[in-house]
Amino acid sequence: MTVEYLPPALETLVEQFAKLPGVGAKSAQRLAFYVLSMPEGGAEAVAQAEVGARGRSAGGPGCQNFAEGDGPCPVCADPRRDRSTICVVADPKDVTAMERGREYNGLYHVLHGVISPMNHVGPDDLRIQPLVSRVAAGDVSEVIMATNPDTEGEATAMYLARLLRPFGVRVTRLAYGVPVGSHLEFADQATLMRALEGRQEL
Amino acid sequence: MTVEYLPPALETLVEQFAKLPGVGAKSAQRLAFYVLSMPEGGAEAVAQAEVGARGRSAGGPGCQNFAEGDGPCPVCADPRRDRSTICVVADPKDVTAMERGREYNGLYHVLHGVISPMNHVGPDDLRIQPLVSRVAAGDVSEVIMATNPDTEGEATAMYLARLLRPFGVRVTRLAYGVPVGSHLEFADQATLMRALEGRQEL
Repeated sequence: MTVEYLPPALETLVEQFAKLPGVGAKSAQRLAFYVLSMPEGGAEAVAQAEVGARGRSAGGPGCQNFAEGDGPCPVCADPRRDRSTICVVADPKDVTAMERGREYNGLYHVLHGVISPMNHVGPDDLRIQPLVSRVAAGDVSEVIMATNPDTEGEATAMYLARLLRPFGVRVTRLAYGVPVGSHLEFADQATLMRALEGRQEL
Repeated sequence: MTVEYLPPALETLVEQFAKLPGVGAKSAQRLAFYVLSMPEGGAEAVAQAEVGARGRSAGGPGCQNFAEGDGPCPVCADPRRDRSTICVVADPKDVTAMERGREYNGLYHVLHGVISPMNHVGPDDLRIQPLVSRVAAGDVSEVIMATNPDTEGEATAMYLARLLRPFGVRVTRLAYGVPVGSHLEFADQATLMRALEGRQEL
């Protein structure tokens, strides 16, 4: 980067901000200057929040979702959630996406990635073993695959389905189909065919 | 429109072009000038194609899809199509969308609209009676609703399902769900919930 005439500490801060996704050189500089202009204690609060969040979110004990320390994740901690259903997602932010719907009432399992031979990610690189342990424990009746509806997400779901079948749980996956509020003429070919195959009784 | 200093015939042509969807005043003028610059017989060919297409596509005999004269539409005319399945769409261009997928092998029925109280479109304004007649004829085993996945399309599908149920045919509709190749985090709430409800065994 060509940030010049900045004190070394500020330059380091700009460089750190520039590593964040979606933050370019200019935004990084703007953020850095903003931090410097914050009232007394502001920079320390941001720094503490960053270190604190990271240190405490190594993955929940069972579900592998972000959690505080060794405690359960916020979903697992809720006594009203149905413990017999596990929704498998690739990423902690997919938990947020599912929760936005306010309809799913089970637990989650976060894989922290998908099987991707292209990127040298195999099953052993994902949090699959803890999922198998949870299912093997016997209280689970259904595992819903909610990996992304793309090739790698699909392949990962199929792999897990084969792995979990011996335990006698119901393994399902989110329906492919036409999104609500869209138009047929804008749907791609693959989606239309999945919507046709997955058609349901009215 | 403020098209000035044009011969009246050219002005009329510009006005006609400007009525087409997506054609503004400037495009209309450009199209009109292009027609004038076409080689001998060019303008006549365009005019004939327009009149010819319109005159011959009043709606096929049974399916109400665009067809030539009193003949069957290209889908109905194909002897290899499965005559026991009818896919109900709102618009002739939805037939094209479904055909792009190259997987559906049944026939179609084009409603030419959807029930829309807001726009004063009731069931009697659509080509519903010919659909009932086709189903009543008895050769149909399944009717697939492929109206758009929005409120009006959904309401129309539900209306038709109730109407056709007495005939003992299977009535289904295209699956709602996450589009192939998309990402969970970009899926809207309603779509995610439909994908969850419609989840399928792996």
